[in-house]
Amino acid sequence: MEPEPPGASGPAEPGPRVRGVRGAAHAASASVLSGAEAEPQRCALAVAAVLPAGGSGERMGVPTPKQFCPILERPLISYTLQAMERVCWIKDIVVAVTRENMEAMRGIIQRYQHRRISLVEAGVTRHRSIFNGLKALAEDQPHSKLSKPEVVIIHDAVRPFVEEDILLKVATAAKEHGAAGAIQPLVSTVISPSADGCLDHSLERARHRASEMPQAFLYDVIYAAYQQCSDYDLEFGTECLQLALKYCHVKAKLVEGSPDLWKVTYKRDLYAAESIIKERISQQICIVMDDEEDVGRLLEETLKNELNHVKVTSGPLCHAGRHLHQIILEQCYSFVCVNVMTSEFEETQKLLNLLKESNFSILYPVVVISVHFLDYKSVPFDRKMENLMQIRELAKEVKERNILLCGLLIYYPQNFY
Amino acid sequence: MEPEPPGASGPAEPGPRVRGVRGAAHAASASVLSGAEAEPQRCALAVAAVLPAGGSGERMGVPTPKQFCPILERPLISYTLQAMERVCWIKDIVVAVTRENMEAMRGIIQRYQHRRISLVEAGVTRHRSIFNGLKALAEDQPHSKLSKPEVVIIHDAVRPFVEEDILLKVATAAKEHGAAGAIQPLVSTVISPSADGCLDHSLERARHRASEMPQAFLYDVIYAAYQQCSDYDLEFGTECLQLALKYCHVKAKLVEGSPDLWKVTYKRDLYAAESIIKERISQQICIVMDDEEDVGRLLEETLKNELNHVKVTSGPLCHAGRHLHQIILEQCYSFVCVNVMTSEFEETQKLLNLLKESNFSILYPVVVISVHFLDYKSVPFDRKMENLMQIRELAKEVKERNILLCGLLIYYPQNFY
Repeated sequence: MEPEPPGASGPAEPGPRVRGVRGAAHAASASVLSGAEAEPQRCALAVAAVLPAGGSGERMGVPTPKQFCPILERPLISYTLQAMERVCWIKDIVVAVTRENMEAMRGIIQRYQHRRISLVEAGVTRHRSIFNGLKALAEDQPHSKLSKPEVVIIHDAVRPFVEEDILLKVATAAKEHGAAGAIQPLVSTVISPSADGCLDHSLERARHRASEMPQAFLYDVIYAAYQQCSDYDLEFGTECLQLALKYCHVKAKLVEGSPDLWKVTYKRDLYAAESIIKERISQQICIVMDDEEDVGRLLEETLKNELNHVKVTSGPLCHAGRHLHQIILEQCYSFVCVNVMTSEFEETQKLLNLLKESNFSILYPVVVISVHFLDYKSVPFDRKMENLMQIRELAKEVKERNILLCGLLIYYPQNFY
Repeated sequence: MEPEPPGASGPAEPGPRVRGVRGAAHAASASVLSGAEAEPQRCALAVAAVLPAGGSGERMGVPTPKQFCPILERPLISYTLQAMERVCWIKDIVVAVTRENMEAMRGIIQRYQHRRISLVEAGVTRHRSIFNGLKALAEDQPHSKLSKPEVVIIHDAVRPFVEEDILLKVATAAKEHGAAGAIQPLVSTVISPSADGCLDHSLERARHRASEMPQAFLYDVIYAAYQQCSDYDLEFGTECLQLALKYCHVKAKLVEGSPDLWKVTYKRDLYAAESIIKERISQQICIVMDDEEDVGRLLEETLKNELNHVKVTSGPLCHAGRHLHQIILEQCYSFVCVNVMTSEFEETQKLLNLLKESNFSILYPVVVISVHFLDYKSVPFDRKMENLMQIRELAKEVKERNILLCGLLIYYPQNFY
């Protein structure tokens, strides 16, 4: 088992109001993924989570296991960890990964600054991985910083869009019923084939459900179930709710989940996940102006008319950068920086410095379009080339910080503007 | 029932070699979607297809029924029709749509030049829609141009990626067994809830399958099944294979399908479908040059290095346009047109005219990047503006034909190039 990363001594404090800049980035990003701006929910239980992440992703048809496939250049599992760690009442998150992916996983945790994560070695099957995760949370573990939870949530590393709401529902239901799991209506009819590959019978769709994740259990129930489990169950079983029923006679409460809980299984699911994330981080554009000029206002009006579903705000970048912080808290990943007053890139530089300091772009790419108005006649050709090269260099530099900078140089004759 | 659109007197002749320009566009597009360049398969049976398309798409969370949702601006159902009609041995395709969508559906058939399509009115449930489609194919229909098939394929309007291969497999198996359907492994475990919303039991995943589409039946079998069907079946049933079993004692042959057969159900599925189609039409870039200049060759080398998975070809645009036709047959939707010799848009115009004539862009958007090199010092400012306006006008004009034109004007001082 892995010690927690340094600086992860206590649970984070997510929510719309945060203290530090680094915290701000995390909270804002988390809210983007949750799609809600509600106050954080409270849960009086001691809750931990176990995420099996030892799968090989053979159905994906790509060599990388699906939980490590990149979405906007960040591994899928990091989105799932982000979704879990933003829930402040989940005290520990135990992730089971194979020995060969352990280093890569440590790298992901460090790079994306994940908190409250402990790593354990995955087993050869999903059930064995979960069991390893549960063992790490048991009371009798020497040298462990983890404490035994009352309720444990089991979630898949490849279901990145899990909401706090459903996590709370299954945790609360597990406290009452001993076990609980999210379900969804069936998309296809389920049939049972006969030995010769023909239809034996089909199941009535209305009387069956797809069992999804997250699921939650009283820790003592699911741990006892796994301890009694047969090797056959550990090798070929997939359903934790069934183990609780079979070995502890606990009938799990079924909780209706949202379609967002779906499991990234095929390559097309990666496409879908990327589009969903792109859509969520494109809900707001902020226009930063170096002046109260008409240009910015005009641009704001135009964008508001063209992009119906996008929130457009504008304003100057204050010296203390306080206004920008507010914008970051409002979950903005798209900036247009209008430079009217100078032909230099001062305002854009200021914005970029603030973005870099804030670490805001760790989790999602930030797009900055830097617009410059230059008098066509008064700027010599050499100077134009210099401008171009300057913005290219700047773009190259901030690209490493996940900031995508585009320069738009608008040359006009004096009588044009 | 609708008469066939004019000019649809016989089945099309898809395949890698085609006669007319219009046929070329259709065949090339169809091949893109199939992802294969194999010779068309033969099927000695008389086969028709029925597509129920009367659904309301409530799970999508959008007001438009999902089969009419646009993907790259073309309705989803048009992709499915394209996938069906490219299979030359499917003689008739009967689509069941609601009365309120009948006009829209006629518009789609006309706009995207679909062939061999007949429309019938959908019923209030999926089974009633299929039954209406089957009735239209019955022998005793007065004034009908349709003839009774030996085998009928039933497919969903919202499964656009169906391959000829699986259609042939189910049709052949239906001839032998009386019924056949595509299946897929289950993604989630299926459970049965008790009346109080708790887990009653979970099903062993390995012993069950998801029943997908397409399915195929001996026409006499499925028609007889529907004729005997109870109202309850017609209202609440979903599984055609089950009807054949229940009323005609035919045990359907189950055929392993590919993951591509999945059903567009949720909004995320539209995202996935769009990404899949975009990927498929981005597999080739063609560089058209007005000269054997180094610029084109250099660009070709650069693109080949940068885009590993994309086929890059280049060449001049012949007067007769014969070379271009070949490129179209090679399934290219992305063009770069390099103009070195003239400052006018002659070469680009020629390319655009050919694309317009060929009707190539009906089914998928075609992207043309027109690159122009202009001597910075010898071109006055007014002329530059004129160039810009000219290309904007051109872009606006061809946009209506689904051709996306970008102009790239590169100004250089004489000693630069």
